[in-house]
Amino acid sequence: MVNIAVLGYGTVGSGVVEVIDENSESIDRKSGDEIRIKYVLDLRDFPGDRVEKILVHDFDVILNDPEVKIVVEVMGGIEPAYTFVKKSLMAGKSVCTSNKELVAAHGPELIALARKNNINFLFEASVGGAIPVIRPINSSLTADRILEIKGILNGTTNYILTQMAVEGWDFDKALSTAQELGYAERNPEADIEGYDATRKIAILSSLASGRNVDFSNIYTEGISKITATDISYAKKMNCAIKLLASFTNEDDGNYAMVAPFIVSASHPLYSVSGVYNAIFVKGSHIGDVMFYGSGAGKLPTACAVVADIVDAAKHIDKHIYTFWSDEQLPLTGIENATRSFFVRVSGKRAQLEDTVKKEFGEVSYIELDEALGEFGFITAPLTEKSFDEHLSNIPGVLGRIRFEEKKNAGC
Amino acid sequence: MVNIAVLGYGTVGSGVVEVIDENSESIDRKSGDEIRIKYVLDLRDFPGDRVEKILVHDFDVILNDPEVKIVVEVMGGIEPAYTFVKKSLMAGKSVCTSNKELVAAHGPELIALARKNNINFLFEASVGGAIPVIRPINSSLTADRILEIKGILNGTTNYILTQMAVEGWDFDKALSTAQELGYAERNPEADIEGYDATRKIAILSSLASGRNVDFSNIYTEGISKITATDISYAKKMNCAIKLLASFTNEDDGNYAMVAPFIVSASHPLYSVSGVYNAIFVKGSHIGDVMFYGSGAGKLPTACAVVADIVDAAKHIDKHIYTFWSDEQLPLTGIENATRSFFVRVSGKRAQLEDTVKKEFGEVSYIELDEALGEFGFITAPLTEKSFDEHLSNIPGVLGRIRFEEKKNAGC
Repeated sequence: MVNIAVLGYGTVGSGVVEVIDENSESIDRKSGDEIRIKYVLDLRDFPGDRVEKILVHDFDVILNDPEVKIVVEVMGGIEPAYTFVKKSLMAGKSVCTSNKELVAAHGPELIALARKNNINFLFEASVGGAIPVIRPINSSLTADRILEIKGILNGTTNYILTQMAVEGWDFDKALSTAQELGYAERNPEADIEGYDATRKIAILSSLASGRNVDFSNIYTEGISKITATDISYAKKMNCAIKLLASFTNEDDGNYAMVAPFIVSASHPLYSVSGVYNAIFVKGSHIGDVMFYGSGAGKLPTACAVVADIVDAAKHIDKHIYTFWSDEQLPLTGIENATRSFFVRVSGKRAQLEDTVKKEFGEVSYIELDEALGEFGFITAPLTEKSFDEHLSNIPGVLGRIRFEEKKNAGC
Repeated sequence: MVNIAVLGYGTVGSGVVEVIDENSESIDRKSGDEIRIKYVLDLRDFPGDRVEKILVHDFDVILNDPEVKIVVEVMGGIEPAYTFVKKSLMAGKSVCTSNKELVAAHGPELIALARKNNINFLFEASVGGAIPVIRPINSSLTADRILEIKGILNGTTNYILTQMAVEGWDFDKALSTAQELGYAERNPEADIEGYDATRKIAILSSLASGRNVDFSNIYTEGISKITATDISYAKKMNCAIKLLASFTNEDDGNYAMVAPFIVSASHPLYSVSGVYNAIFVKGSHIGDVMFYGSGAGKLPTACAVVADIVDAAKHIDKHIYTFWSDEQLPLTGIENATRSFFVRVSGKRAQLEDTVKKEFGEVSYIELDEALGEFGFITAPLTEKSFDEHLSNIPGVLGRIRFEEKKNAGC
């Protein structure tokens, strides 16, 4: 019998209990042992609930019980999760977590601690919800050099952008609906400003490179400035706007970023809609591999956590090597990344064409309704740095969005 | 140091040597040990080749060398692969293989032998080329009940069907081009008659259910009867024809099948073209998860094999539990599967409409050029058995193709 303790009886925690209760027979068969939930830690009481009798309020009860072999941290946030996880690992208990903030901030230290104690620190559920992506990068794509990772890693923003495009809603209505449906938090900042996606791409980049990518060094731009007019331009170009997180491992350096991008209809990420996530991995030999699935939700995330519990139970006295050292991976800035840009300018195209041509050479113009008093254009591919310099010489710029592909014409 | 031996220096075998040579530093780091190719077995000589000095012609040299801890079987076919693999496992050597024929025919026996000897029998490369799918099903989707697997598992047939649709080629031209490009074998039967896909879906179904699915019980139909006219009808319906392999795990039974299906443009498998593979997995809690990537090719397949070598090296004295017993999973026939069908009939629609209505009720008609002297129709959803009964009463039937979805009208 393998005794486990679940820290936190919120959405994911109650999902973990539900999945284990419901599939206990097959989970035990796959673990090769009986998995038993011995404790659930939460500050609240749950009278009448299935966990009522195993609920504890004091973490030390779990820490001091040598029967508990696996601690499941699904509380979220850095503290007290970090302290509890660290104490658990130091006490020789494996930890499975869905907490991307914790993993992005303290991954290498916690992995090293698990290695030292010949136990495991597993975090499949921290990126991509139900989509198996951590384990494939860690165990299946090990023979190749990963050149690029690119994906839609945040379901909340993808839902908002999808609804703006499909229903014609403005940003505020899409956000408030996402909040009503439970897809967005009351305080949505971490999702809409891109911070959540940044932590996830930091985790994936670290696993891909084997070195630590500090999320605070990643260029991050959210979707809160994307307007219904931007979406109209994108639709006119037969494109969609997606919040993409990416990591590029090139000979002259590595860079990572999170920002809204314009994606053409022929791009595989174009059709990833709603709360779905998709992650592309490009290897030097394997070419493109893509993973797709539900990026969030109580039961999908819980299934990813339970799969880690099964793996931890199968490896009770055996560390599963995770390729993520605490050596920092130096990231270059994004100044030299080359791409096309879409620019919106206030005013009449005829009056500004010469200025645009002087700065950007030949561009493709995109116009919506003349009554809007603005126009748009798409630049030829150029570096971020050069783009910024030239853009500063154009009067009346309303905004700019990057293109996923380099292009000379409309999508 | 972990010494390995590679059995077979053909396409995949030479790819394995190339990938290990090229990425040895990172592979060693990820294995936590130095991987050294001690022997390559082949009947041929390769004078001047990198493997010249480690080439052996006699398998017993490898078998009797206690330093060899991992045997890499990339010869293909049942014999002598089966004998070599069995002897290796019995001698306490882990085996990594790309051989789907071997895995489909003897999987449970070889897994049990590995378990008994506390070593590993790994076969990620046997399905989906570079796409990690075996390991995710075996390690990441373990918490959920898998309800359905559906995918494009054979790159050769997908290339042929893609070229017929995109270039307007007939079947023979597409096949001969595939042969010239090395995508199809001189004897293409295993691919085009669906036998290769059948072995792959048998492997995935076995892993999903934990019991053995005998590939010889799987309903199999290839693509050799698909004509350019069929493709024209599909295009008129805004659809594509794809060879799909599927496994359905329903309360009233399990069934598996391989056959050409008509897939609508909104279906995620519609856009999987050329030699790419894609595999959908539906779980009761996780919903749909999809894996996509290059389904074949020397280096992608070699990378999948090398990832297994790394995993075997990380688990030298520890069996990785694989959920595939030798207990047979009873498969029901496909008679009760319900779907819509597309039917082509020789003759004039006006003269046969009454007969069609009598047998199938309301249908949607699809017509190409009247000069062809034929027409097509799509039935409402009905069981395979009922469809066959009614179809036998229609005179002049030229062919029928299943619809991936149930429909009452055109795609």
